[in-house]
Amino acid sequence: MDALPYLAAADAPRDFNLPLAMLLIFGVAKLLGELCIRLHLPALVGEILAGVLIGPSVLGWIAPNPFLHSLSDLGVMFLLFTVGLEVRAAELKRVGGPATLVAAGGVVLPFLAGWGILTFSGAGQTAACFAGAALVATSVGITAQVLQKSGLLYLRSSRIILVAAVIDDILGLIVLAVVSGLSRGQLNLWDIGLTTFFSIGLFVLAIQYGSRAMARAVPRVRKSMQAAEADFAIAITVLFALALLAQYAGVAAIVGAFLAGVVLAGQLSGRALDFARGATELLVPFFLVGIGLNLEIGALRDPATLLLAMVLLLAAVLTKIVGCGLGAWRFGRQDALRIGVGMVPRGEVGMVVAQLGLTLGVVSPSLYAVTVFMAVGTTVVAPPLLAWAFRGAEARHVDPDAEMPSIG
Amino acid sequence: MDALPYLAAADAPRDFNLPLAMLLIFGVAKLLGELCIRLHLPALVGEILAGVLIGPSVLGWIAPNPFLHSLSDLGVMFLLFTVGLEVRAAELKRVGGPATLVAAGGVVLPFLAGWGILTFSGAGQTAACFAGAALVATSVGITAQVLQKSGLLYLRSSRIILVAAVIDDILGLIVLAVVSGLSRGQLNLWDIGLTTFFSIGLFVLAIQYGSRAMARAVPRVRKSMQAAEADFAIAITVLFALALLAQYAGVAAIVGAFLAGVVLAGQLSGRALDFARGATELLVPFFLVGIGLNLEIGALRDPATLLLAMVLLLAAVLTKIVGCGLGAWRFGRQDALRIGVGMVPRGEVGMVVAQLGLTLGVVSPSLYAVTVFMAVGTTVVAPPLLAWAFRGAEARHVDPDAEMPSIG
Repeated sequence: MDALPYLAAADAPRDFNLPLAMLLIFGVAKLLGELCIRLHLPALVGEILAGVLIGPSVLGWIAPNPFLHSLSDLGVMFLLFTVGLEVRAAELKRVGGPATLVAAGGVVLPFLAGWGILTFSGAGQTAACFAGAALVATSVGITAQVLQKSGLLYLRSSRIILVAAVIDDILGLIVLAVVSGLSRGQLNLWDIGLTTFFSIGLFVLAIQYGSRAMARAVPRVRKSMQAAEADFAIAITVLFALALLAQYAGVAAIVGAFLAGVVLAGQLSGRALDFARGATELLVPFFLVGIGLNLEIGALRDPATLLLAMVLLLAAVLTKIVGCGLGAWRFGRQDALRIGVGMVPRGEVGMVVAQLGLTLGVVSPSLYAVTVFMAVGTTVVAPPLLAWAFRGAEARHVDPDAEMPSIG
Repeated sequence: MDALPYLAAADAPRDFNLPLAMLLIFGVAKLLGELCIRLHLPALVGEILAGVLIGPSVLGWIAPNPFLHSLSDLGVMFLLFTVGLEVRAAELKRVGGPATLVAAGGVVLPFLAGWGILTFSGAGQTAACFAGAALVATSVGITAQVLQKSGLLYLRSSRIILVAAVIDDILGLIVLAVVSGLSRGQLNLWDIGLTTFFSIGLFVLAIQYGSRAMARAVPRVRKSMQAAEADFAIAITVLFALALLAQYAGVAAIVGAFLAGVVLAGQLSGRALDFARGATELLVPFFLVGIGLNLEIGALRDPATLLLAMVLLLAAVLTKIVGCGLGAWRFGRQDALRIGVGMVPRGEVGMVVAQLGLTLGVVSPSLYAVTVFMAVGTTVVAPPLLAWAFRGAEARHVDPDAEMPSIG
């Protein structure tokens, strides 16, 4: 209220009205999500479009800012954590081989396509390599959310997608490291090797020994703690500890969050699980809206730029489907298609690559806008494609408390 | 990891390591909270001291920043929301009269004490008035948390504390408006009257008609929504809508959050309640740690400043107990003491007043540090005092799903 501006200033020392931002982002996300459900589209398409609507592209009510960015990071960490809670380490080990093939297929083709299209459009070699790297990065959050909400995480193809996305993160990291190194004229192979070693090591250790270690540690810690909600405190601590470890190892924090969920699967009380789901349900809209917020439609007004954006988007969708699908060909056409479609969304990861190129001065603002368009586009297109690819699959809402049936 | 600094930079464009900050704040808070429980102190004392420990006062690992500030604001909003969910509007109406007396007593004495001590110490009139205003502001979050965790919210004295704290917020606002106006040499009585009118109006409307309106609206909205977790979406939307309304009316956003809980009490599914509790459990440590983070012990090295801080802290504790206790005298000595102690914590509200004075240039940095010390001190002292004042009271963990027994 304008009547007492000095009090308003005291209440909100930042140029940011917290309740208003929360209400707008959460409210519009849920509203458009509801609308999408009625149009037989997954709700999260509406939540991403909510970000486009209230962001700089259309209404300009909310601009991206560090607070919203951090909330979005928290949202995708909690999302991957709860997804991990529905997955068993043994299941992941079983699909390691095929997932590596899928990830590799999903790296080579998209990189070549991105590099080729930009080169053809007359961009420099470094910019073309960055576009290729942006096309490599898969954002597992979107697919994981769709599969979780549809009760399809138990399927073998879903497991392969999850593991392939983690491996994709490591491969994408190597590609990005090489590309960044080339753009600076210095390529430190020792550093790249070290990061690869640490990130693979963390993954293997967590999968191999994490669950057993937690099965011993959690009951002891729980027993020795007198605080109520001990389980939830354990969950949050493990979640951020592994996210931090993953970040130190050089991969994305969400890989650690996912592993935290995997090693804690089946060990937390039902109440702690519901608490974690509550935090997730609150924070995930900020992740989804945040993706839409980054889009700046205005930058694509030039017809040539728009055409490039469209071509890049099409290539991004097709090359992942084909590349990952080829990697999964031996599981039959249906599963290959499902896995390929599952790897399509680039989401926040593609944006981070473009952002890095912009910061290094090798990606122009217009190429940045094009890459963000590609990232948002793949993310909006993927959920309906997923719903179509997985049509007819039986939904099973896994109870993470119970020991899970083994699905081969 | 230093090996790939450009990737670390891409992952964290802010000068802020999100998983590390989350792990440190949440982990140390829970650790010291556990320690306090073993020392027979309420856990939240440890969580506030965790902020003192890792903040600028001792280790300097984490400094207050806008992101943590916003998380802390969210934490206290969710806290008051879940407290509101355990309270019925009818109960609040019943204690309106006595609560007004309590609030009034808790405004007059502390203001006079703060003003008197500062005047005696040689400070100017404006600074003295600001210190008085800082002593007025009660932070209901701390008491609410203690009473909620101890299952004592059902007691009449607890209800009186909650309503008195809301009225205290309105009165404190008027005091602060007058003091700020005087310090600028302009006192707009019309604006102050308007704000008072709007804030009281919001409170009365919510208490009188809110629950009934929600009892009609919620089932309809729930029925017409196809999204899963519709109840939780409703809860979050109402929470931030009322917080925003309260802010527009001129009072703190947490008053709106509390009213949102009150009007939704008994209307949400058990799952939505557990979700809200999960978000609360995640965010409240950031509120508590945030209080401790603001303390700068170093500024109190000067003996005269330290003495002033001690005297102000003592006065802050005693004048609330006596002032509010006198207002509640007719309920007998035990309840008067409980209510008086319940109003002691100044927490974040006292800090906001000091911050405003600092911004206006009428509060010196050293007086700012003294006021923050007073605010943190009352907040650390109150929970053990509360535990002592409420000793022997039977704990009843209210199930907010069930209709609550009426306690006169």
